[in-house]
Amino acid sequence: MSYLYLTDFLNLKEISSDLQQELQTCIQVKEVKKGEIIISKGDLKHKKFYVRNGLLRSYIIDSKGREHIYMFAPEGWVVSDLVSLTGNQPAIMFVDALEDSTLEVIDDERIWKLKDRFPELMTSESDRMLRRIAVLQQRVIMLLSASAQERYEAFLTKYPDLIQRIPQKMIASYLGVTPEALSKIRANMSKS
Amino acid sequence: MSYLYLTDFLNLKEISSDLQQELQTCIQVKEVKKGEIIISKGDLKHKKFYVRNGLLRSYIIDSKGREHIYMFAPEGWVVSDLVSLTGNQPAIMFVDALEDSTLEVIDDERIWKLKDRFPELMTSESDRMLRRIAVLQQRVIMLLSASAQERYEAFLTKYPDLIQRIPQKMIASYLGVTPEALSKIRANMSKS
Repeated sequence: MSYLYLTDFLNLKEISSDLQQELQTCIQVKEVKKGEIIISKGDLKHKKFYVRNGLLRSYIIDSKGREHIYMFAPEGWVVSDLVSLTGNQPAIMFVDALEDSTLEVIDDERIWKLKDRFPELMTSESDRMLRRIAVLQQRVIMLLSASAQERYEAFLTKYPDLIQRIPQKMIASYLGVTPEALSKIRANMSKS
Repeated sequence: MSYLYLTDFLNLKEISSDLQQELQTCIQVKEVKKGEIIISKGDLKHKKFYVRNGLLRSYIIDSKGREHIYMFAPEGWVVSDLVSLTGNQPAIMFVDALEDSTLEVIDDERIWKLKDRFPELMTSESDRMLRRIAVLQQRVIMLLSASAQERYEAFLTKYPDLIQRIPQKMIASYLGVTPEALSKIRANMSKS
């Protein structure tokens, strides 16, 4: 019944059995181990992954060899190098597994072809894109205007269950602060 | 013939005269003066604006009263507080005019209602959202990983004609660097 996860994500409350059957042919279940790299910079024809269980992250490596975390993707999230993928460009990001994970590999081209027959897929897609825009907008605003502590507090509020699952230095990388700054903030917060 | 701008934006190469007529009822032309505020934080029922001529910007004011520029919108861009607008929330951003501008006020609800009859509007919308995601992704990556000089160089490459139209301190705000840092960078670049 693997399609159930994707359809849950698609947020289609009344899904026809026709569409269910079709969607089932658009995904493949994949198990990955902690540390496994799923997309590497330069990959062509990379895919989108829906996280059924586990935790992925996407990140870039800058010209000085430093890692910067773009996104964490726990259960229920979709991760890919969306911009490269849609533009048929080589990936600019890496995606790897922070935990052993069960994924659904999404065949987007195939889903795309279903859109004429199932227009509800378009509405669902535009909802998801808008959610992604909202996340990115919030991220830009935080990076521009919030102090390191405010960023950390916002992260705690938004992803309370991720704090235990992700090493501090990765959270620091996502927030755009140094690990040392994050340690100080945590120390101050536990005092007060 | 105001609809031409909107249809250009929608990137519909073969647009039916039916749809043209309908779209014409979904926009209103509006002239604004330099300095005019078009959306204020807290506004409900704010709108989307397509810039026919001129230049707008969107920005937030943080808890310490500092301005941070989220986006510049020259000719051909659409600006709004998209996330608040779609969620029926009060605006969190301000939008004002950096130049005297001619805008098309877009009645999104009305366009939305056309989608059943003109499914091509959905494709067009998802293209635009994807372009917005691409811009935001690039912005996050720059803010996380690029030096002040790299950010400025990327801005020069991406918006070569904006440099003359926007005060340096606003470019600094957009880039997330201090005006002093930007002055130094410009001085260094003109030397080399």
